[in-house]
Amino acid sequence: MSGSDASAPASTPGRRGRGRPARAAAGAGPGARERILAAARGEFAEHGYDRTSVRGIAAAAGVDPALVHHYFGTKEQLFGAAIAVSFEPATGVPGVLDGDRDAIGERLARYFLGVWEDEDTRVPLLAVMRSALTNETAADVLRSFVLRRLLEPIARALDVPDPRLGAELAASQMVGIAMLRYVVGVQPLAGVDAEEIVRRVAPTLQRHLTEQ
Amino acid sequence: MSGSDASAPASTPGRRGRGRPARAAAGAGPGARERILAAARGEFAEHGYDRTSVRGIAAAAGVDPALVHHYFGTKEQLFGAAIAVSFEPATGVPGVLDGDRDAIGERLARYFLGVWEDEDTRVPLLAVMRSALTNETAADVLRSFVLRRLLEPIARALDVPDPRLGAELAASQMVGIAMLRYVVGVQPLAGVDAEEIVRRVAPTLQRHLTEQ
Repeated sequence: MSGSDASAPASTPGRRGRGRPARAAAGAGPGARERILAAARGEFAEHGYDRTSVRGIAAAAGVDPALVHHYFGTKEQLFGAAIAVSFEPATGVPGVLDGDRDAIGERLARYFLGVWEDEDTRVPLLAVMRSALTNETAADVLRSFVLRRLLEPIARALDVPDPRLGAELAASQMVGIAMLRYVVGVQPLAGVDAEEIVRRVAPTLQRHLTEQ
Repeated sequence: MSGSDASAPASTPGRRGRGRPARAAAGAGPGARERILAAARGEFAEHGYDRTSVRGIAAAAGVDPALVHHYFGTKEQLFGAAIAVSFEPATGVPGVLDGDRDAIGERLARYFLGVWEDEDTRVPLLAVMRSALTNETAADVLRSFVLRRLLEPIARALDVPDPRLGAELAASQMVGIAMLRYVVGVQPLAGVDAEEIVRRVAPTLQRHLTEQ
């Protein structure tokens, strides 16, 4: 692969873009990076990690595969970048940690449910969960992302001796709700109002985050 | 398919059983049902719902596919039966509900962690989770199984007004721990002693199950 050859993509026609030949010809033009990232997010969400290829992402973005490698490196690194975009709403967590400490659990529960109730953010998050369940590389990427972008900020914000295990147990509660409410669709959990869930899980999150 | 023809399998040689021709020839002989179920569990665990076929299960069990249909009906029904076997340890839950009510959360946490710490029970449970995440039929089967075999017994045992939502929130906490500890392998959750997790989540399960 010519992933390290920065000049190649710009001079390659790359006319495989479906229905947008002008942009495809532009290749490395303005917005190419964002277009590749959006395509990667869509392809990983739809097909999962295993069945997504750099070639397919390049085609969906209307660019040459070499340009994808140039901007993002390997498929694994591109998956990491796509996860980062998908989790962007979730990285608002540090903001949740500001303010009245006694209501951290409630703010976190409401924030998390909001992210999952919105289809635009739910679909890519589900895709990441699916990929992590079926592919070890995807699980690796998710693991280091969760650690660096979610748990470390929480650990910095809380002044308990060992905040990471508590943060992970809080995350477990929310991941399990995501599984049973949005994926498996168990009733009554799948049908109950989001605010009722906030009310019920807020004390759990509060305890995990601030007590040991 | 001759799934409803009970006499066919017994008269079929079915010599595709790998290395056990005597049993394969026996077809509908003693233990065939259990052998098919064990094969189904293994095949679904290894390949997931989508990529598992009745034909492949029959081959692994050393019987004719018609015998599989005779005993278990469709692939979907066979998946349901395989789930029931995989969850058999988890259906010990009603036993957990007997005894001192103030320690229900702790008993449930210890029981659940025990099931997941044991590789023999963990592997098929993971397979069920994977299948439910990627296939709607598998999710349906899991949903009705969880309802009938896990939640209804819990609902009967607890004398709170609406026990099912609480039982599902407790289940969410444990499912999320299974995801992050055993699948994604996030540290420190993946490395900490199981008893430490029991200590931390017991109050959460207790609250979900007995308070509203």
